[in-house]
Amino acid sequence: MNFNAEFRRKIDIVDKALDFFTKPIDNEQSAIYEAMRYSLLSGGKRIRPVMVLACEELFSNEENSLPFACALEMIHTYSLIHDDLPCMDNDDLRRGKPTNHIVYGEAMAVLAGDALLTNAFSVALKHSKLAPKQTLNAALTLSNAAGTEGMIGGQVIDMASEGRRIDEKTLRTMHLCKTGALIIAAVRLGAIAGGASLDDISRLEDFAHNLGIAFQIKDDILDVEGNEALLGKKTGMDKENQKTTFVTLYGLEKSKELLNEYTEKAKEALTFYGDKAEFLIKLSDYLLKREV
Amino acid sequence: MNFNAEFRRKIDIVDKALDFFTKPIDNEQSAIYEAMRYSLLSGGKRIRPVMVLACEELFSNEENSLPFACALEMIHTYSLIHDDLPCMDNDDLRRGKPTNHIVYGEAMAVLAGDALLTNAFSVALKHSKLAPKQTLNAALTLSNAAGTEGMIGGQVIDMASEGRRIDEKTLRTMHLCKTGALIIAAVRLGAIAGGASLDDISRLEDFAHNLGIAFQIKDDILDVEGNEALLGKKTGMDKENQKTTFVTLYGLEKSKELLNEYTEKAKEALTFYGDKAEFLIKLSDYLLKREV
Repeated sequence: MNFNAEFRRKIDIVDKALDFFTKPIDNEQSAIYEAMRYSLLSGGKRIRPVMVLACEELFSNEENSLPFACALEMIHTYSLIHDDLPCMDNDDLRRGKPTNHIVYGEAMAVLAGDALLTNAFSVALKHSKLAPKQTLNAALTLSNAAGTEGMIGGQVIDMASEGRRIDEKTLRTMHLCKTGALIIAAVRLGAIAGGASLDDISRLEDFAHNLGIAFQIKDDILDVEGNEALLGKKTGMDKENQKTTFVTLYGLEKSKELLNEYTEKAKEALTFYGDKAEFLIKLSDYLLKREV
Repeated sequence: MNFNAEFRRKIDIVDKALDFFTKPIDNEQSAIYEAMRYSLLSGGKRIRPVMVLACEELFSNEENSLPFACALEMIHTYSLIHDDLPCMDNDDLRRGKPTNHIVYGEAMAVLAGDALLTNAFSVALKHSKLAPKQTLNAALTLSNAAGTEGMIGGQVIDMASEGRRIDEKTLRTMHLCKTGALIIAAVRLGAIAGGASLDDISRLEDFAHNLGIAFQIKDDILDVEGNEALLGKKTGMDKENQKTTFVTLYGLEKSKELLNEYTEKAKEALTFYGDKAEFLIKLSDYLLKREV
């Protein structure tokens, strides 16, 4: 398998569908679509939706998970827009471009985020090709992952932790919620769409759980030694904001070891699937080595 | 029927369920529940969820619509929290109490709104007693009503209209989206839960459409001649913000005539249901005469 070509192919499928699902309707409120699409179609890595598609492929050859993959990316994007707001992280730059509120103003950025979150459910519910029961299960997976016991909960812990040292347990809970919840949702959505068994789902959750931690450790490392031009944002922000990270807790060297360990654990969880999991394994290595 | 007693009974059902559906879980992120519940359980009029229950009663004796009634109220509450933010309407007072961001800060208010919106879908999908197909239909009704072609769309038109005179058509489109969409959703949700026919749904939509306009005209009138202490907020804000309203377009006298006309039209749409619609008819009169 040519991983890069296959990754590109999957990203294209997602990008086309996201464009289609958020086509502006020509009416008085069309300005909102411009703000939504500015952030949604601005070259995200598409890790989560690609994982959804790849997990479905373990079990079926359909692309039934596509509306859910897109809904997940819409939810991820809304969270970035709201996180960047002046009252939250106050970031001017994201992926090398001005953030949503810099371009459209704060009020529109709040609404664009709200709209991406709300319309994510419309996209999933309206365009699902799954049976009603599976569709319900998948939609509930989305809302649970994004809600107070998932992503938003993580954000709340993050806010409460600012400027004070937190212990390893709290740091892990925060990341499990803030980043982990959507990554675990990605594998679940793919599995549900593919008609996987409960055993399969628990194997994939094991994979996603470890990959999520690796993903976060890599983020923390990149904030210390990443390339600002490649990242499209300032580095050293964690130190400036006195954030507890894997690097502040363990140091750079040990963090790199942990990154390798968790990536290995993630890949091991896929052993059961043999060659079929090649893409997901290569994706894990790609995330380990990423510069962005 | 003792309308007040029956209204109170329905409000109690809703209040109890809202409390139950948003019970804080004792963990690191429990602060978010406090902020959510502060606005959700602060004595809203509960018009929308009560309408959901009343519409279901036209067709069935179950209370299957309750999770959807609560989800609708959670969505309504999130929209108030975000509308009150400094970057939006910048309101300090709502229902006579400090607004969410005044109490919890802007960042938490953004998250509390996001959480109410997200968890609304979890509540609806997780607690629905309807068949999967009906549940999907009801959940899609929620997301469509709240999204870019519904409530958020109305908010976008409202923002674009500030400080400039708009024509009657734009004003009506704005209200149809901003207020009307959730009121129409309320009757649809009740009808879906009650297993109503498409004809029934279209009759109830006719009712809701007219009631929604009447509701907005009343709001505009109250902003001119309402009692600040009763309303729990400042009056005269529309004039101060140079907003186009029914009163600025038609004057106070004609607006009151229109209010009566639309309320009558709403009630007429219920003729088909005879005595069964007594509560909804009395609710329409209550909304016509409300001081809050």
